[in-house]
Amino acid sequence: MKKKVNAAILVIGNEILSGRTQDKNVIFLSNWLNSNCGISVEEVRIIQDKEKIIVENVLLLSKKYNYVFTTGGIGPTHDDITASSISKAFKLKYEYHKEAYKILEKYYGKQNFNDGRKKMAKMPSKVKLIYNPSSAAPGFITKNVLSLPGVPSILNSMIENCKRYLVKGLKTYSKTINLYTVESNISKNLGLLQKKYIKTADIGSYPFFRLGKIGVSVVSRSKSNSILDKINKDLLKIIKAKKIKLLKFK
Amino acid sequence: MKKKVNAAILVIGNEILSGRTQDKNVIFLSNWLNSNCGISVEEVRIIQDKEKIIVENVLLLSKKYNYVFTTGGIGPTHDDITASSISKAFKLKYEYHKEAYKILEKYYGKQNFNDGRKKMAKMPSKVKLIYNPSSAAPGFITKNVLSLPGVPSILNSMIENCKRYLVKGLKTYSKTINLYTVESNISKNLGLLQKKYIKTADIGSYPFFRLGKIGVSVVSRSKSNSILDKINKDLLKIIKAKKIKLLKFK
Repeated sequence: MKKKVNAAILVIGNEILSGRTQDKNVIFLSNWLNSNCGISVEEVRIIQDKEKIIVENVLLLSKKYNYVFTTGGIGPTHDDITASSISKAFKLKYEYHKEAYKILEKYYGKQNFNDGRKKMAKMPSKVKLIYNPSSAAPGFITKNVLSLPGVPSILNSMIENCKRYLVKGLKTYSKTINLYTVESNISKNLGLLQKKYIKTADIGSYPFFRLGKIGVSVVSRSKSNSILDKINKDLLKIIKAKKIKLLKFK
Repeated sequence: MKKKVNAAILVIGNEILSGRTQDKNVIFLSNWLNSNCGISVEEVRIIQDKEKIIVENVLLLSKKYNYVFTTGGIGPTHDDITASSISKAFKLKYEYHKEAYKILEKYYGKQNFNDGRKKMAKMPSKVKLIYNPSSAAPGFITKNVLSLPGVPSILNSMIENCKRYLVKGLKTYSKTINLYTVESNISKNLGLLQKKYIKTADIGSYPFFRLGKIGVSVVSRSKSNSILDKINKDLLKIIKAKKIKLLKFK
């Protein structure tokens, strides 16, 4: 029987923390991991490009979760220190990975294979590669830590190559009902509904503004689709009793 | 003399972790805090709506940083547990805040002031309010922890009201040079440049794709604008020597 499998995402990047760049990898990874592998992301941390901080967080999260996904810091420049920091975290040598070296040498050509490019073949000792179909430089997996680049288009192109390393878990299903009402009008009912399904589902409530109208999305999440159907039946009763306009189901 | 002041952001919300919603508050808060208050965001955590997890993270981050900003979980529904969790973290009573109660009662009208709405006036004992010009329900500051809502438009409207509670620090300035080259072509030079300014600046390098062309943004960040000018002069020398096309300055 499949079980619950969880993961954390460790975003390594001053450019995200400083507000220069909008992170887009968390939403992509969360959705992909749940849909394709039944893996739930339970924590995200965004940290500075500093060795000590990376080492600490990699060790802590790799103990706490089934998988850790790092994004960023595996390029050719001085601020790309993910591979060397993970080596340090797990007390592994930081050295050329033979296959990665060959891939990069072939991609750039022997004459253009300079030190910067060679750096991208340096990894923790004996890791397995995550192939990169768009720009060659591979990611890698060290114990339960999968290291991917920060550029979203490249990360997205590599994600299918992570699959072979992941044990699949139970997928989380979700259903959303969008209502034209305000949260405080249904908060009591939702609270009771959550209590009723406390062991099998999470019910969340999120205000939205659409075309000048205020509404609430009620999102139910569960490992069981039939539980979600039951919750929706209960929700429809509440909506009817309260004469709330239903916007649409998703 | 002003000093370095730092902060962490604690995003409380299953909807961000599950990939349902794209977070937009981190980038806004980071930029606003640096530009307006000289406060650097040094860590972000995105966590589940679970009391134990919120308590742990609030305590840890409030010790580690000058300020903590929490986003999300201060609405009227059962999954809004930020205020009760922070009360628990700091061993404060979780009770009606008189002024918040009055504000909300006035906003909704006595007849429509139901339990869900009243819940938004329950806060850790004796906190100070962060006024909300868009939807009335105030945020609050508990010790060095500022609690704001998760809806970006409401958070944005409240941010100016945080100012009175913040000690200003030294602003971080940044300059960006966009180049038509690849990272590995300049990685050695950038590494040497970072070494030269190791104590006063952070130099980052980020690939971009624009109109089918590949480029690199070199971003220098420092508490001193004159250091940034020096770095840019050095960068221009490198660019000239390498015959790299400069896209533009920002």
